[in-house]
Amino acid sequence: MAKEKKLVESITARDVDFAQWYTDVVKKAELTGYTSVKGCMVFKPAGYAIWEKIQQELDRRFKKTGVQNVYLPMFIPESLLQKEKDHVEGFAPEVAWVTHGGLNELQERMCVRPTSETLFCDLYQKDIQSYRDLPKVYNQWCSVVRWEKTTRPFLRSREFLWQEGHTAHATAEEAEARTVQMLNVYADFCEEVLAIPVIKGRKTDKEKFAGAEATYTIESLMHDGKALQSGTSHNFGDGFAKAFGIQFTDRDNTLKYVHQTSWGMTTRMIGAIIMVHGDDSGLVLPPRIAPTQCVVIPIRQNAEGVQEACEKLTADLEAAGISVKYDDSDRSPGWKFADQEMRGFPMRIELGPKDLEAGQCVLVRRDTREKTVVPLEKAAEASAELLGTIQKDMLERARAFRDSHTYEAFDYETFKKTLDEKPGFVKAFWCEDVSCEDQIKADTTATSRCMPFDEQEIPEGAKCVCCGKPAKKMVYWGKAY
Amino acid sequence: MAKEKKLVESITARDVDFAQWYTDVVKKAELTGYTSVKGCMVFKPAGYAIWEKIQQELDRRFKKTGVQNVYLPMFIPESLLQKEKDHVEGFAPEVAWVTHGGLNELQERMCVRPTSETLFCDLYQKDIQSYRDLPKVYNQWCSVVRWEKTTRPFLRSREFLWQEGHTAHATAEEAEARTVQMLNVYADFCEEVLAIPVIKGRKTDKEKFAGAEATYTIESLMHDGKALQSGTSHNFGDGFAKAFGIQFTDRDNTLKYVHQTSWGMTTRMIGAIIMVHGDDSGLVLPPRIAPTQCVVIPIRQNAEGVQEACEKLTADLEAAGISVKYDDSDRSPGWKFADQEMRGFPMRIELGPKDLEAGQCVLVRRDTREKTVVPLEKAAEASAELLGTIQKDMLERARAFRDSHTYEAFDYETFKKTLDEKPGFVKAFWCEDVSCEDQIKADTTATSRCMPFDEQEIPEGAKCVCCGKPAKKMVYWGKAY
Repeated sequence: MAKEKKLVESITARDVDFAQWYTDVVKKAELTGYTSVKGCMVFKPAGYAIWEKIQQELDRRFKKTGVQNVYLPMFIPESLLQKEKDHVEGFAPEVAWVTHGGLNELQERMCVRPTSETLFCDLYQKDIQSYRDLPKVYNQWCSVVRWEKTTRPFLRSREFLWQEGHTAHATAEEAEARTVQMLNVYADFCEEVLAIPVIKGRKTDKEKFAGAEATYTIESLMHDGKALQSGTSHNFGDGFAKAFGIQFTDRDNTLKYVHQTSWGMTTRMIGAIIMVHGDDSGLVLPPRIAPTQCVVIPIRQNAEGVQEACEKLTADLEAAGISVKYDDSDRSPGWKFADQEMRGFPMRIELGPKDLEAGQCVLVRRDTREKTVVPLEKAAEASAELLGTIQKDMLERARAFRDSHTYEAFDYETFKKTLDEKPGFVKAFWCEDVSCEDQIKADTTATSRCMPFDEQEIPEGAKCVCCGKPAKKMVYWGKAY
Repeated sequence: MAKEKKLVESITARDVDFAQWYTDVVKKAELTGYTSVKGCMVFKPAGYAIWEKIQQELDRRFKKTGVQNVYLPMFIPESLLQKEKDHVEGFAPEVAWVTHGGLNELQERMCVRPTSETLFCDLYQKDIQSYRDLPKVYNQWCSVVRWEKTTRPFLRSREFLWQEGHTAHATAEEAEARTVQMLNVYADFCEEVLAIPVIKGRKTDKEKFAGAEATYTIESLMHDGKALQSGTSHNFGDGFAKAFGIQFTDRDNTLKYVHQTSWGMTTRMIGAIIMVHGDDSGLVLPPRIAPTQCVVIPIRQNAEGVQEACEKLTADLEAAGISVKYDDSDRSPGWKFADQEMRGFPMRIELGPKDLEAGQCVLVRRDTREKTVVPLEKAAEASAELLGTIQKDMLERARAFRDSHTYEAFDYETFKKTLDEKPGFVKAFWCEDVSCEDQIKADTTATSRCMPFDEQEIPEGAKCVCCGKPAKKMVYWGKAY
């Protein structure tokens, strides 16, 4: 028990210092590792395995909608980056520049991609001639670089992993439909797989992507009440097409510009999983994203029959499609419990000589620590069911937390006071004027997170929470990562 | 038939101009695309899908041997690259240098990783303290950059995709065993999945990896008689461990240096598939690596019942686990045949009104063009069997080609003449002196490809093919990509 205590005590309590708690979890659950490369991070096996699960789940969903994977160069020549005016203004200040190749200075410097709109445009400009070549629905899994000044593991680092989808369509309607379709894929993925509820909506012009006509977003709420932008989908209209000359001959034999979209989700979702579900004992992984779903832990493993029974149990669970590990290391059971809890594996099964005698084992949930005793021969079935229950409960708990930390404000004093005193989202009307957004940010550090799709029926007489002029939008405001 | 002819005629014949044939196949099968980034390539959907299959197959095999995936930064600070002397000499001349981040010049420039030994050493130096921390068997899937002067799609480009495994072990024996184990994984993968036979052996000191104690390689033979290094596995001994100070406390309580290995396979294997199996009609993919294994092509698709029968056939094949596409586009059957052949899908099924009447369909192999008529209800079963046969035959055909293009030479005149006149490998004895390797390269442009593991029993009196001194090794020589 001494070892167990030691392991657990080494995490800062979540409600004492959330930032330190986060850092502790990331380190103790061995998600990231040390690197001499400033501002960059190492994904260790436990961290990368979560990303692999995210990739599998998302990629399967993408392909069902007709997405094809490709890979484009990591370098963007400066002249290419500069072709779309808003885009270059948004990204040029934060890119890494390659100036030398081998022993020679390059004739034109190149940046390491911060995002690949320009490269996809360059490709589409050559590959699209006719309506027969449309739509193009490409995606790539890669790393991108943005020269951030302050960094945090998963949430903000100079290099991160993501997928970026880039599409080209014959009509504005089709592009808009794809933009919304991919946002819905992200939202479903977050809720069904990560057990993270999200608000779906549109970004204000101030917060939209550099070069986009409209940016749609899903926003989630972390345990400390801060918002996290969790996935975005952009409709570019024909802006990039005009800048890059991407035209096609339509069925009516006229030359038209394509309409484009892009959409991305990143490794910051690993940070979201930690910050939505984690607790004072460490990480808590939703079963559907956990690389290991169950750990079988023997009690008095050298007692007669325990080893064999644990091995059979492990095999039974595996056969039932559960990702399971048998921990037969020479540590104490208490140490193993704490280790399983720290790593966030959704459940464990305890099995000792007394259980064996009674023909039973003990299922322990990671999220609630609730224990259930089940007959050994029913363990696999009961575990599969329990994992389903945990997944469902985790989403419901996160949703209840989010809902109970979402406030409304109709006047500026209440608005500021709520943002100051109550961590969470504040819903408030807005006149659509950027100067009010600027004012709010200056007064509270909060930003407009999104204009939710399904809450835009503005009541008669509603006023902007900041300036009092007639309201045009309902906005979720919050302090954000 | 006019369209079909046109499509086929647009490829240069393989034996007329192999290099142009290769370029044509890569383009017409839509494996790669245009990019404005000099020396880099675009992996289009058909090309990237092959890489995804390679990744799945290799990754599964890696994980069975205990490999864990990680992800390390893409940048290497110059001081880190310089820690191992041989390594920096090997790579510094061909890396891309990042000198600016955002608007500022970096205090220390960084290269984009050409390979990540130094970063893994940096990680291991921090993470390894005790024998309990060993072995570390990490791998990453990523892109790397080497500033090549002349480039060719898949075979040599400034950026390419690969996996790089990096391991650390307590003993020299264990490191050596892992080096050989991974070479065997590569060899089995090449033969079983890519249907490419390989020679397994050791590189000479001149050809080994910068910083390695020993480099093992698998070498394959392309249709033009040139060799392709297809996968390498390096044993570093404790050289990097000493340069980076990677020590652990062993069971006997003494401080020891770890022993390390690394091993990699790259997207150049897509080039190997093209050059080993392709023919004058285009790509020929082995069934186990083909993203699409079968295309169902209707003859007179508007005739009664054909559409329905094709759809049922497609569903039957899918249910049998075959990756199948139904081509119901408005092109002619002839065009579709040529298209399927160009893209290298291993087989097609032709089905028209007459077949339907007779309750049959026609299976056509891509590799031999052999046709088999089978009853409709047996089509799925027959296709699965045919795909197995194609896979087996492709390997046997490639092996027969390789064997019939492998020669022996016991004197220098024969050796030079063979290399000059007969494309392929030449087996010849060698004294182990680098000056003979240099001489051979100067005289013939051929290099030592490998010293095969199972052919090192040197007969009494055997002499170096170049200098005539006593032979110590049997070497495969060849001109290489």
